[in-house]
Amino acid sequence: MEKLAAVSGLWQDVRRIRAEAPLVHNITNYVVMNTTANALLALGASPVMAHAEEEVAEMAGLARALVINIGTLSAAWVRSMLLAGHAARAKGIPIVLDPVGAGATRFRTETALRLIEELNPAVIRGNASEIRALVYDEHGTKGVDSAHGSEEALEAGRAVAARYATVVVVSGATDLIVEGSAVVRIANGHPLMPRVTGLGCTATALVGAFAAVNPSLRDAAAHAMAVMGIAGEMAGDRAAGPGSFLPAFLDALANLSEDDLRARLKMETE
Amino acid sequence: MEKLAAVSGLWQDVRRIRAEAPLVHNITNYVVMNTTANALLALGASPVMAHAEEEVAEMAGLARALVINIGTLSAAWVRSMLLAGHAARAKGIPIVLDPVGAGATRFRTETALRLIEELNPAVIRGNASEIRALVYDEHGTKGVDSAHGSEEALEAGRAVAARYATVVVVSGATDLIVEGSAVVRIANGHPLMPRVTGLGCTATALVGAFAAVNPSLRDAAAHAMAVMGIAGEMAGDRAAGPGSFLPAFLDALANLSEDDLRARLKMETE
Amino acid sequence: MEKLAAVSGLWQDVRRIRAEAPLVHNITNYVVMNTTANALLALGASPVMAHAEEEVAEMAGLARALVINIGTLSAAWVRSMLLAGHAARAKGIPIVLDPVGAGATRFRTETALRLIEELNPAVIRGNASEIRALVYDEHGTKGVDSAHGSEEALEAGRAVAARYATVVVVSGATDLIVEGSAVVRIANGHPLMPRVTGLGCTATALVGAFAAVNPSLRDAAAHAMAVMGIAGEMAGDRAAGPGSFLPAFLDALANLSEDDLRARLKMETE
Repeated sequence: MEKLAAVSGLWQDVRRIRAEAPLVHNITNYVVMNTTANALLALGASPVMAHAEEEVAEMAGLARALVINIGTLSAAWVRSMLLAGHAARAKGIPIVLDPVGAGATRFRTETALRLIEELNPAVIRGNASEIRALVYDEHGTKGVDSAHGSEEALEAGRAVAARYATVVVVSGATDLIVEGSAVVRIANGHPLMPRVTGLGCTATALVGAFAAVNPSLRDAAAHAMAVMGIAGEMAGDRAAGPGSFLPAFLDALANLSEDDLRARLKMETE
Repeated sequence: MEKLAAVSGLWQDVRRIRAEAPLVHNITNYVVMNTTANALLALGASPVMAHAEEEVAEMAGLARALVINIGTLSAAWVRSMLLAGHAARAKGIPIVLDPVGAGATRFRTETALRLIEELNPAVIRGNASEIRALVYDEHGTKGVDSAHGSEEALEAGRAVAARYATVVVVSGATDLIVEGSAVVRIANGHPLMPRVTGLGCTATALVGAFAAVNPSLRDAAAHAMAVMGIAGEMAGDRAAGPGSFLPAFLDALANLSEDDLRARLKMETE
Repeated sequence: MEKLAAVSGLWQDVRRIRAEAPLVHNITNYVVMNTTANALLALGASPVMAHAEEEVAEMAGLARALVINIGTLSAAWVRSMLLAGHAARAKGIPIVLDPVGAGATRFRTETALRLIEELNPAVIRGNASEIRALVYDEHGTKGVDSAHGSEEALEAGRAVAARYATVVVVSGATDLIVEGSAVVRIANGHPLMPRVTGLGCTATALVGAFAAVNPSLRDAAAHAMAVMGIAGEMAGDRAAGPGSFLPAFLDALANLSEDDLRARLKMETE
């Protein structure tokens, strides 16, 4: 019964995104801009990428969600992220933050923390290393990879969610969505996913699309991660490797049906 | 008979691009750089992407066409666009402008108008919202999408073509190429094309390649749009969704034959 | 016998990359960031892209190789390249330089020479035009293409290797790896490779991955070029054009076996 309700809620969000094509404003890194724009389009949302200080506030004012990703950072972009973020807050649209590489360099950790403190994002999504770096004083983690166990991941997710009163997604073999004492676990996905650049960033962008149509930010985050994992499984069934995976993944996002969700969803709430 | 002549002229341009591999200098947005470079290569042209103020004038001086796209704008890039544009004018090569997102923010509309007024581009290509924003005082259009009817599109195309004495392409289900009182309509294309990011920008880049080999800018623009639409149809026949569409589209650009043009071209001139 | 040894050495490097997933820090151009990150991941390495002056030295200090590519240059990026390069030298990790477009504009040629003189890269990889521009006073070469014969390519490679005491890779139908008086020739590859943007830059990035695990920089460079060419052949067997080539190429990098190397390697050392 619980699974039927979960599938129904998830499918309702997918249908709303397809029907309403919400504008999602992304300030994201150069590596993944193309991939995340294509994923948002495949899902049914309308992506826009804009980072100029002259226009980010106006653009955020047109959007229904703002996604900030610090993957290829520079000082000018941080100023734009703050401008866009304050405009998003003034308008009341959700901000989703991806602290890419937090923990790898001081600049990234400090920028992530500054964005969190100034903008109070609705959802923060990262891997275990990145989420840990937001609460523990860790440095020199290896780029954007993560090598932490599931227990450590949950502990860090809970700590960030509590400290910043936000929804936290810790990506991994099992994705954890944490809000207060509630935890949703999603066990969908495919082993090729970490072999394709930008799928973590794509997950964050999809959280933006779901947050644009679902006021429950925890549900929005869980639905985005479920869709990522399920489309990933569908792509994995067709792909011969990481190269053919990405086109198949975008196809799956576009072709996803309620039956696919029903057959594949592995979501547990506690 | 008219169609035979159209196919013949179009095929001649494709063969010239493949034989001469004209260098097309692009100052374009981060999201689509890879896609447009690959499309130009697949067609047979030689793309170069360069935006540094220190080199854009020199690079434009090596090229046979300059493509300017304002998709991810910043103040420094606008200066480079102007420098490159003045070098292109001094050399006498065509400038093709893509006013991405004009109408969405004031910065984009104003930048597009400034580039048009200072550089007098040979061809301007946009969707109906973007083209309308160049002549009507419209703001807050939804990103790079367009929701205008064909009549409004034509009216806006005529107005921009008249005001700036340029060739205007208004992309849509039917593409309109407007020069003075002449209108070419191209009804090729595939419903998946708006689901893939950067195909509008790619159309603009291909206009650059055709303008490099064909001094009739109206023909060059029409040929580029026809090749986009026909390669799109060929890709649509093979694709399972927007993800597999893009590789199939690039394959089609590279493999396009005169027979494909003859079988598929839907071009009308009035 | 020589070929067996070559296959064995190459396979050992591939296995080490897959086992150790060395972090490769890339400061590269916007056009190819996604492609090179995906190629490094497909091979088994861990890519990170970072260019901010605030963090490049720290990031280079975490990495096992630094790849610098001047494909879409600006003054701020050059400062970051120098900062990262000095950090890499202090740590003793190899620097691999791709002088994209050297010879096309003075800014690129001068920047490439400045990076070489200040950073003394372990390996420089370019096409014949780019390598020639580092020793001869040539300008206005057509973008990133190359139209030089094999003799001229070798002469230029020897001259650069001698002047800067470095390993030089001159890419072409036959790749040349030059160190002092030694030359390795690799005749693998596929005609579609020049039709896909960023494969030269990808070769440079893979040199970084091999240099991270093999202290013989000549072997590292030769192994990277061999893997590029062999994966290219495997992709060419499956691809219908340049669009389907890239996914197939990434699949081949990920799926490459010792048998593939044995069946295909065309490497000669003199």
